[in-house]
Amino acid sequence: MKRAPVIAVIGAGEAPPGVLELARAVGREIAGRGAVLVCGGRGGVMAAAAQGARENGGHTIGILPGYDKNQANPHIEFAIATGMGEARNAVIIATADTVIALAGEGGTLSEIGLALKLGRPVIALRSWPNLENLNRAETASEAVTTAIDLAGCVGQAF
Amino acid sequence: MKRAPVIAVIGAGEAPPGVLELARAVGREIAGRGAVLVCGGRGGVMAAAAQGARENGGHTIGILPGYDKNQANPHIEFAIATGMGEARNAVIIATADTVIALAGEGGTLSEIGLALKLGRPVIALRSWPNLENLNRAETASEAVTTAIDLAGCVGQAF
Amino acid sequence: MKRAPVIAVIGAGEAPPGVLELARAVGREIAGRGAVLVCGGRGGVMAAAAQGARENGGHTIGILPGYDKNQANPHIEFAIATGMGEARNAVIIATADTVIALAGEGGTLSEIGLALKLGRPVIALRSWPNLENLNRAETASEAVTTAIDLAGCVGQAF
Amino acid sequence: MKRAPVIAVIGAGEAPPGVLELARAVGREIAGRGAVLVCGGRGGVMAAAAQGARENGGHTIGILPGYDKNQANPHIEFAIATGMGEARNAVIIATADTVIALAGEGGTLSEIGLALKLGRPVIALRSWPNLENLNRAETASEAVTTAIDLAGCVGQAF
Repeated sequence: MKRAPVIAVIGAGEAPPGVLELARAVGREIAGRGAVLVCGGRGGVMAAAAQGARENGGHTIGILPGYDKNQANPHIEFAIATGMGEARNAVIIATADTVIALAGEGGTLSEIGLALKLGRPVIALRSWPNLENLNRAETASEAVTTAIDLAGCVGQAF
Repeated sequence: MKRAPVIAVIGAGEAPPGVLELARAVGREIAGRGAVLVCGGRGGVMAAAAQGARENGGHTIGILPGYDKNQANPHIEFAIATGMGEARNAVIIATADTVIALAGEGGTLSEIGLALKLGRPVIALRSWPNLENLNRAETASEAVTTAIDLAGCVGQAF
Repeated sequence: MKRAPVIAVIGAGEAPPGVLELARAVGREIAGRGAVLVCGGRGGVMAAAAQGARENGGHTIGILPGYDKNQANPHIEFAIATGMGEARNAVIIATADTVIALAGEGGTLSEIGLALKLGRPVIALRSWPNLENLNRAETASEAVTTAIDLAGCVGQAF
Repeated sequence: MKRAPVIAVIGAGEAPPGVLELARAVGREIAGRGAVLVCGGRGGVMAAAAQGARENGGHTIGILPGYDKNQANPHIEFAIATGMGEARNAVIIATADTVIALAGEGGTLSEIGLALKLGRPVIALRSWPNLENLNRAETASEAVTTAIDLAGCVGQAF
């Protein structure tokens, strides 16, 4: 069985309406290309992206920090309960072929760092202008196109 | 969105033909009831159960020990790369509503212990006769019926 | 630098006085042989063993499930905050050269399973009579003597 | 028992001589103030910092990515084998009261992100000039003084 590309969407658990709308558009694009969305499974950017993917018929996976699957947002089709707190970020990144980062805080920064370490390409969507080694995109469509393109050339894990 | 019940199948990475046939029948039954199969994503019991589920149109999730999704068996639809080695057992158990255990070794014993700790009911399918606090089943159908029944009354995590 | 042998003591977070006294004696013996004690860092068997080790001048390491080091018992010299919940059991076992198990429940069973998987010898001290592949001891002194003896021949991790 | 403050030193596994000398000076200062050093247990900045701490009579803890304690550098007194790969970064950060970051790459960036998320203050020692929310230091002494000062007011984990 050939598996579909898996794209992570990372961003803050609380975000302004413009960022949420962008996340939802990213989710829609991911599903439209036949890719699977993986995220942290909670609110904000994670919920908006999952909503967009489900609206467009895509599969969504949420990697949760706790043991309670009821903490997944309602747009998560497959809730993975890790019980590992922040260490679950490593599972999100490792599970993805490529990573799309929207404006975020500490949590997102750690995920970008892990992606660089594990060789998963990162596409910064209107965010993190002062970080090096990231791909850049200005629209949801551009971000997902780049993510799909790069999914075939995932770097070597350490 | 109401999520489907998730049933873990745990057992050895290498097993005799009779055990593999039983695992495949369990996978088929899980898919037939509309449940999702989660397992360790590798060979032996894990591959046979996932094969049975896919043959019957079900979804399969493999929680891998490493970072390389190519190490998933070909019947895994969604490969979760944890990079966490044996600690990934905790993710398998926490993600499941109930757990079906086939004859296994050390790895399976640790998963049963975690399930008891996290309050996930365990159904021992022709295995572990000398362990207490496990539900018992003699056939694949009986095991999955019990697993589905118990999925609604999952215990409280610590 | 040659590192001292590291011995894990595992057992229930609540235990009757006789088991706690046994755990404390084990801790005392571990320190007396110049070994380091590692445990889950919480109460019951974990606290009693750490108390014994500290009373006898030994070092104690507690591998905690949460992020709060204040949850370590007062006899833990070095508190390792994992935030990984039950998955922290894998860290306890992997950090130990050998494992001494006192009467326990689900949590301890999962640790024994992990030890067998990771090739760390287990000494069952008046416990788990129905499990195979464990070494047996009847006294604290006998358990620690066996643990030290076996520390030099730790099995190969998978 | 009052536990000593624990300070993490994070940085690249390979670094130029000037950075290594700085790391060693940081380790020496940490031990000189009676604090415990925690790090990733491998080479480069991690080994240099641990060497400095041990030379000055301090305790050193190495949180390793693998299961093999022999992969710890020779200056690690207590080797914690996590087997969790990059997820072990979360254990380093959570175990520390404060974090000193030397010039690094992806791995270090993820650790800074985790520290911000878990509320552990970060002191950037001649590094990461373009990241916000970090404390700044120019010398080893200044970095450790700030780290000790901030150890008493560790933020609240999420």
